[in-house]
Amino acid sequence: MKLSRYKHTSAFSYALGATLVFELLKTHTNAITRVFLRPEIKHGDDLKKILSKLRQEHIPIIESTKAFNVLGAKDNCFIIAEFKKPSTKLSSTSEAPHVILVNPSDSGNLGTIMRTALAFGYTNIAIITPAVDHLDPKTIRASMGAIFHLNIETFPSFKAYLSSYGQLDNNKRALYSFMLNQHSKTLADIKPNNNYFALIFGNEATGLPDSFADISTTVFIPQTPMVDSLNLAVAASIAMYHFLT
Amino acid sequence: MKLSRYKHTSAFSYALGATLVFELLKTHTNAITRVFLRPEIKHGDDLKKILSKLRQEHIPIIESTKAFNVLGAKDNCFIIAEFKKPSTKLSSTSEAPHVILVNPSDSGNLGTIMRTALAFGYTNIAIITPAVDHLDPKTIRASMGAIFHLNIETFPSFKAYLSSYGQLDNNKRALYSFMLNQHSKTLADIKPNNNYFALIFGNEATGLPDSFADISTTVFIPQTPMVDSLNLAVAASIAMYHFLT
Repeated sequence: MKLSRYKHTSAFSYALGATLVFELLKTHTNAITRVFLRPEIKHGDDLKKILSKLRQEHIPIIESTKAFNVLGAKDNCFIIAEFKKPSTKLSSTSEAPHVILVNPSDSGNLGTIMRTALAFGYTNIAIITPAVDHLDPKTIRASMGAIFHLNIETFPSFKAYLSSYGQLDNNKRALYSFMLNQHSKTLADIKPNNNYFALIFGNEATGLPDSFADISTTVFIPQTPMVDSLNLAVAASIAMYHFLT
Repeated sequence: MKLSRYKHTSAFSYALGATLVFELLKTHTNAITRVFLRPEIKHGDDLKKILSKLRQEHIPIIESTKAFNVLGAKDNCFIIAEFKKPSTKLSSTSEAPHVILVNPSDSGNLGTIMRTALAFGYTNIAIITPAVDHLDPKTIRASMGAIFHLNIETFPSFKAYLSSYGQLDNNKRALYSFMLNQHSKTLADIKPNNNYFALIFGNEATGLPDSFADISTTVFIPQTPMVDSLNLAVAASIAMYHFLT
């Protein structure tokens, strides 16, 4: 059993716990290479269902305590699925709104944004690198499995995103950049009448560079001067909710 | 130097790091009992400002590496303020909307909710116990110091909250309970025309009991069936934004 701690450069990642393994099985059955099981675990109904499906798909099930140690699983995690990291593309149609995260640095925020995105029907997320690894087991966990239902594509720059998805025929995608300063339109004043748009959010500590004002409509979520800024996942969630309702 | 690890029952809590100490100094100067400083730290401008203010207030400054170990501070934390835990009451006026958290269990969520609450002008938060300790240094940290600007009061039951703050003369506070099921009004359909209301949110795993439907207007944030629920801090933040705009 060759296995090592997860790294950004690994070809495989890991879904830790029954909930995530279940979501992975629903959406990426063919990507699963093997499953680790704690030898001492009692087989409840949920687990039986998962194991039955795994056997049906001829996925190897390996009883091993060591795997849980190597992968840093908690004591209450009794099943881990190893899977080949998927490579997804965004949908380019005008029906699919995009969420663009520029240099997100926190796996908890990224996971929470994925969860909200799926809840509100945003299934296409662009990540501009450098950024936290969206396929890190920690991020997957924070997404509560939402990541397995989303198209996520990384780009080395915002320009690279634009050249792939910024325009459809002669129709430019409407871009909304969320800024920390008040020299922008307030969220309540903006309401697109179709889904051909992208919502752009910056890094947790630094926000978006001012240069985004030159290429997009800038938006501000009104707030008291008592706080420096909203939490990134909170700001993105409020914006996603607002734009689809 | 008598000092022990923070406990829920401690009379004192701790603000870890310059940002939190600074906020604490602005709002609760008289509650600070002593400040710990890493002996090896270089005194930059921010720190000099804090130290000068501390000396002016005659607050003891103790150089000690041990305090940082005992309190579990990270290596990049070089200042800690000990303070007597405040006991605050909510504002009962009809101008002050309330946020009521029933049995919140995660310090990160609670801190994030406090940060959003302050950003949107909700300065009164009721917590129904059992709940995570809002004065735990971890929660304080997650609030980014917002906690020091808020009135927070705990109650042993929702009934206890109601008997203190549910009614002003003959005027009952409007209660909105956020539910996980769809047999409720959707958020977009509800808009109070004054601030005499309370937004009520349940526990991360279980939500609010059905019994809240008997005593309040139930509200649902529309979402796809692809996720079980929104993150608690996300749901509360979307609701707080919606109700004040």
